[in-house]
Amino acid sequence: MPNEISPAVVRRLPRYYRYLGELLKSGVARISSMELSERMKLTASQIRQDLNNFGCFGQQGYGYNVESLHDEIGRILGLSQGYSMIAVGAGNLGQALARNERFAQRGFIFRALFDTDPKLIGTVVNGVEILAADKMEDFLGEHSIDIAALTLPTRESAQQALERVIACGVKAIWNFSHVDLDLSEHPDVTVENVHLTDSLMMLSYNLRRESTPCSPAQSH
Amino acid sequence: MPNEISPAVVRRLPRYYRYLGELLKSGVARISSMELSERMKLTASQIRQDLNNFGCFGQQGYGYNVESLHDEIGRILGLSQGYSMIAVGAGNLGQALARNERFAQRGFIFRALFDTDPKLIGTVVNGVEILAADKMEDFLGEHSIDIAALTLPTRESAQQALERVIACGVKAIWNFSHVDLDLSEHPDVTVENVHLTDSLMMLSYNLRRESTPCSPAQSH
Repeated sequence: MPNEISPAVVRRLPRYYRYLGELLKSGVARISSMELSERMKLTASQIRQDLNNFGCFGQQGYGYNVESLHDEIGRILGLSQGYSMIAVGAGNLGQALARNERFAQRGFIFRALFDTDPKLIGTVVNGVEILAADKMEDFLGEHSIDIAALTLPTRESAQQALERVIACGVKAIWNFSHVDLDLSEHPDVTVENVHLTDSLMMLSYNLRRESTPCSPAQSH
Repeated sequence: MPNEISPAVVRRLPRYYRYLGELLKSGVARISSMELSERMKLTASQIRQDLNNFGCFGQQGYGYNVESLHDEIGRILGLSQGYSMIAVGAGNLGQALARNERFAQRGFIFRALFDTDPKLIGTVVNGVEILAADKMEDFLGEHSIDIAALTLPTRESAQQALERVIACGVKAIWNFSHVDLDLSEHPDVTVENVHLTDSLMMLSYNLRRESTPCSPAQSH
């Protein structure tokens, strides 16, 4: 059934999951599409359509059961199982990722970081060891790793790391390098890009619009 | 003229800018929409449409002048001027941001980081001082800051920091907290969200699809 969900709806699922998780934490047992729409700044009909997509129907006059909706979306997102991760590049960003407790709470666990810097190799970040980059194949041969976060600075280093982890069976890439990686020869590998400079450029664009007289108000 | 560009096209501009920047660096002076489409995995007609939007027309049999196209997109994105930034939250992520040289290269300069942790206050990260969070209003009164990066863990702390920086005139928010901030009372403030757990959830969703027999090949 998840195979039938359109990419646009899928993109919204993590956001639903976050909102529903917050509602759960604050003790809300059920919610109408109207209330959810006010919180999420989507229309109620958009929410009903989205949720109908995967068989979650609110009851008239009752709304959605927050917990079961949260669980169902988590199931569709594959969050019931755990995932093992590595980071290639153990600089500031790689270490920041390894220290983020929220990922582990969601079941995404870092097993190792890799770097070429002798000063970093052997040190431990939040319980995760930084290993020498040339030991990566050995490690990936011995451990089943689902996701590799790439935090390398250049296209060459990122693309090279990509090829190495894919050759060892990693199927998901979390790309923090500022380039789009070439995955044309790996149609079975999925990638999520976090292009930080792109979001800065969007802020710059919107700041510039804001400061231009007569431009309509822009926001989020 | 930039006011007429559709949001979907605007969202693609940083990517064009990155690709053109790489072409420039590798000494490519001109490129056809066909070649650019192969690199960027967009159709050539999509590229022609996008670029026509802001008055950049390739010449038949010649293509686009890479440098002038790069400069024009940079101008539209507002990159010719510099931007001053702060980060609220000087933990691992805040420090990683302050250490990223690429932001400064693009003209986005961190002026200060703020934190409540006495161990961090007074230390200097890549030339940027970590100041006490309660000095934020003083600092923002004395310095013109365009962008505030929020790297705080909870909705409450992020929303509170948001209100404080907006009250001091900051018009752009780079939100790394895992929540969507409420900007309904600030229509003149622009926000870019970097929801790291959302991208992990998308990887999880796609990994699960990949491992389901008979599902069509999925990728990026």
